[in-house]
Amino acid sequence: MKLAQILPCIIWVREYRRSYFVSDMIAAAIVTIMLIPQSLAYALLIGLPAHVGFYASILPLIIYAVFGSSRTLSVGPVAVASLMTASVIQDIASQGSIDHLNAAIILALLSGLLLVLLGIFRFGFLANFLSHPVVSGFITASGIIIAFSQFKHILGITANGNNLPEILSTLYENVAHTNQSTLMIGSGALFFLFWARSGLKKLLLKLKVENATAELLTKTAPVIVVVVTIFTAFSFDLGSKGVGLVGNIPSGLPTIQLPSINSVPWMDLLVPAILISIIGYVESISVGKTLAVKRGQKIDPDQELIGLGAANVASALSGGFPVAGGFSRSVVNFDAGAKTQAAGFFAAIGIGIAALTLTGLLAFLPKATLAATIIVAVLRLVDFSILKRTWKYSLSDFMAVAATMVLTLFLGVEMGVLCGVTASIALHLYKTSRPHIAEVGEIDGTEHFRNVKRHLVNTHTEILSLRLDESLYFANASFLEDRIYKELALRKELKHIILMCTAINEIDISALDVLGVINQRLTEVGVGFHLSEVKGPVMDSLEKTDFIACLNGQIFLSQHIAVTTILENKLNIAQDNSEFRDYQI
Amino acid sequence: MKLAQILPCIIWVREYRRSYFVSDMIAAAIVTIMLIPQSLAYALLIGLPAHVGFYASILPLIIYAVFGSSRTLSVGPVAVASLMTASVIQDIASQGSIDHLNAAIILALLSGLLLVLLGIFRFGFLANFLSHPVVSGFITASGIIIAFSQFKHILGITANGNNLPEILSTLYENVAHTNQSTLMIGSGALFFLFWARSGLKKLLLKLKVENATAELLTKTAPVIVVVVTIFTAFSFDLGSKGVGLVGNIPSGLPTIQLPSINSVPWMDLLVPAILISIIGYVESISVGKTLAVKRGQKIDPDQELIGLGAANVASALSGGFPVAGGFSRSVVNFDAGAKTQAAGFFAAIGIGIAALTLTGLLAFLPKATLAATIIVAVLRLVDFSILKRTWKYSLSDFMAVAATMVLTLFLGVEMGVLCGVTASIALHLYKTSRPHIAEVGEIDGTEHFRNVKRHLVNTHTEILSLRLDESLYFANASFLEDRIYKELALRKELKHIILMCTAINEIDISALDVLGVINQRLTEVGVGFHLSEVKGPVMDSLEKTDFIACLNGQIFLSQHIAVTTILENKLNIAQDNSEFRDYQI
Repeated sequence: MKLAQILPCIIWVREYRRSYFVSDMIAAAIVTIMLIPQSLAYALLIGLPAHVGFYASILPLIIYAVFGSSRTLSVGPVAVASLMTASVIQDIASQGSIDHLNAAIILALLSGLLLVLLGIFRFGFLANFLSHPVVSGFITASGIIIAFSQFKHILGITANGNNLPEILSTLYENVAHTNQSTLMIGSGALFFLFWARSGLKKLLLKLKVENATAELLTKTAPVIVVVVTIFTAFSFDLGSKGVGLVGNIPSGLPTIQLPSINSVPWMDLLVPAILISIIGYVESISVGKTLAVKRGQKIDPDQELIGLGAANVASALSGGFPVAGGFSRSVVNFDAGAKTQAAGFFAAIGIGIAALTLTGLLAFLPKATLAATIIVAVLRLVDFSILKRTWKYSLSDFMAVAATMVLTLFLGVEMGVLCGVTASIALHLYKTSRPHIAEVGEIDGTEHFRNVKRHLVNTHTEILSLRLDESLYFANASFLEDRIYKELALRKELKHIILMCTAINEIDISALDVLGVINQRLTEVGVGFHLSEVKGPVMDSLEKTDFIACLNGQIFLSQHIAVTTILENKLNIAQDNSEFRDYQI
Repeated sequence: MKLAQILPCIIWVREYRRSYFVSDMIAAAIVTIMLIPQSLAYALLIGLPAHVGFYASILPLIIYAVFGSSRTLSVGPVAVASLMTASVIQDIASQGSIDHLNAAIILALLSGLLLVLLGIFRFGFLANFLSHPVVSGFITASGIIIAFSQFKHILGITANGNNLPEILSTLYENVAHTNQSTLMIGSGALFFLFWARSGLKKLLLKLKVENATAELLTKTAPVIVVVVTIFTAFSFDLGSKGVGLVGNIPSGLPTIQLPSINSVPWMDLLVPAILISIIGYVESISVGKTLAVKRGQKIDPDQELIGLGAANVASALSGGFPVAGGFSRSVVNFDAGAKTQAAGFFAAIGIGIAALTLTGLLAFLPKATLAATIIVAVLRLVDFSILKRTWKYSLSDFMAVAATMVLTLFLGVEMGVLCGVTASIALHLYKTSRPHIAEVGEIDGTEHFRNVKRHLVNTHTEILSLRLDESLYFANASFLEDRIYKELALRKELKHIILMCTAINEIDISALDVLGVINQRLTEVGVGFHLSEVKGPVMDSLEKTDFIACLNGQIFLSQHIAVTTILENKLNIAQDNSEFRDYQI
């Protein structure tokens, strides 16, 4: 049992059945066909030799099959992590240099080790601090950046940049140098792939292909484009006409070796590695969870960290770049009927065979084709509906989405995600620093106290019942203080303030100090200060201090008891010190 | 009325009475006597010419009297802001150079403008994010650093550094060069000042001096030391014996002029200026509030920003350094009977007279004397009791104190306060990311639902009532999700889950998405998902979405109604889909 926690594969290997094998093989075949162009394309996106994409798609899949807790997640090169990698390593070394590749490998190593460490220390919860608005905004903006960054390959020109304005301005500068043949190949591929998204399925259905099969065959459209453009490039000798081809790439499997970390300033890669690993993890865990829920399976967030981390370390050891669980490939894997991670294992074998046998053919593959597959793939990530949804739901969520999108587009992926996370945390803190404070009164004939502004309730001029709708902590304690003093100045007959603590889940020491000051001030002006409905854990904390002893009033079990007790007993705090009152107001 | 909001002085000037004048004059005289050595000492602490201390103590006091909202706050040079200034400007230019002074002046200008801006935009709430543990830890650590940094003057050697290890190691290196005469003056002054803190008052009481007067006279002990050591230095020509003296300083009032910002990299001073202004503000507002509460007066946090900001701009225009409301001087001012800011105005005149007439005498003042007054003053700031208090109260508050103290001591003031603030916010977020989730049951004969672990309550095997003690937001939504799935796996008879929302003050869009996923999962396994006691503002938000329509259960006004309705009606969600159940577990 313990071993199965470390090696989740033990569970599915033990339960393995022959029927699973057939399903897994079919899914693996389809995923392999998808992954061949994708792995090359993402290597191209990063600016690395194409075969490195293969290297990032063999060992990582096998290792994830051993350590991962999701049965259907398809790990390998993905769009957003690749974009982030590209953006980091282009500042480290010039494209094509050995250090450029080394930087990508070390980024994978660092990301992997970080994820494994986070997993071991059960720090998976850190991913929760990436709110949905930030993730959605970030992924949409990344999709846009990636799509535009690939247009240079469609046009056959050079362009670069880490953000949209840079990319657009370099595209604009060089657009005059557009290569006609490249543009024809690229736009043809783009057009076919866009059409295939809806038209191919319709065509297959007309040809009496079953719906599910048609759906899956549609996903293989990129392979059709790859095959067609390879033969076009070969037949018309497009390489000599200035069309960028993948060119000769080494054939064979990656050799396992430790990356050389001396040549690269790996300390500078630490922060980017943290960002890449966390973004990659969030992407993986969200698709993994979605798929697991559909089959009533479970994902262990901390085990996923280890699985994904091990996959990244494996990628680094085989000379690859950072990998993650890809959204579209995982869904295809799931829909194709993958039962276990054996599907991932078989897909790895598929890519291995491709790396051994297909490199001769792939030398003729136009880069424009790969760019077209990337553009079509990433445009699926672009989703502006989150803007509308959050706009309707809450301003602060909308602001988090908008800030993340705009900053990512204009400042690049790293600044975008960092500012997005900071913005969503800051907005949350801002909201909790000015909590909702409701004056409450008793609903006739019940013991329920509700907001006087929303319900018809009974109140008493000498008693003010305030319900603070937030935990009391350093950021909002003086907000409560100010509110109480304001009420004090407005209500001349006030003799008692009862703080209804139903929503107070914690009182930290800063807030405790402020409560002490409020109590002191109220005592001076002869107003009783009481608490009601204090939660167990909060009461436990208060009992450790002298606050309860210093409190001029009482702590009541319920708001109802508090009000009735005060009314019946005419508690005499106010009378005792009433001469202080004029002094204050 | 509007004008009085911008110029709070209008209020006290209008109410001014003759009796106030006498009180204010007495307080001003005592504060002036305290401020003469302090202003010189803090200039020395920063490493600036002594007379700059006077410049920072004239116009700022007058301007604060006009714009400040506290009647008794004594603005001027203070220990912590001076330490922070010293630490920043020593990296900008070498001590003694014109740019060194310019950097301090620009720091005052930037801090002042920032505070005024924050005040105009009513951003005073930002100061609330400095928790009491962080402020206490930071001030204690700063006090220790300042005290040790002054030992070089007591020994007559050179030493420097931004943090304790640096200061101690440079002290240790040079301790062999100790100047005997300096040590005698310095240790004599130190001894007298320490004794004066308790002994002088006792002595005065024995001489039949009234208690309050004795208390105030004790505060003037530094002046006695100053006078005695000036005459000792003059009589024994200590200057020629290697004792560091203040030396010739220009006599006269500061001239008002715009600081020259071209010679100093003012962009580098922006972040330090933010830190200095916020720390200075927090120090000022906390002492200002404490004193105001004692007299039933009010402090307007946003007006304080403007008052303090204007004082800093005034300091910059007269060639001074950053100022703030000093704790000990304000208390003395208050105890001496200051009624209004006129006391501050008169103290400014007092310092002006000193700057015009006393510079000849002050030339013979040993630096060791000033160092001794600083050491005695800052050791009052050192307070380790916060460590004990927080240790008893809550681990996270203790960690925030300890982290701030240790980091300030070992990494210096800027890193210390930045890490402290980050730590206290991170700890708060961590706590809210793993909220308390209680299973609740009904107390017999009531409609109250309480934690099953703390109370004897009624529960039903087919119904699980969970109370989430925290607002539901991105950082804790999946924590709730995990808990619900865990309960689902443990309780085979479960048919309904009711989420009691008394403590949920907000549901952000990330949490809403997670609630949607929980609902989908529970629907698949045939378990009803209900909410109860949803607060008004939260309900308003939910009504803007299709969540309520998708929810497989209902939203009940109270937990009691929820449980009784489910028991009576045998809601049929569970029965309908019971075949799903085996699949899941």
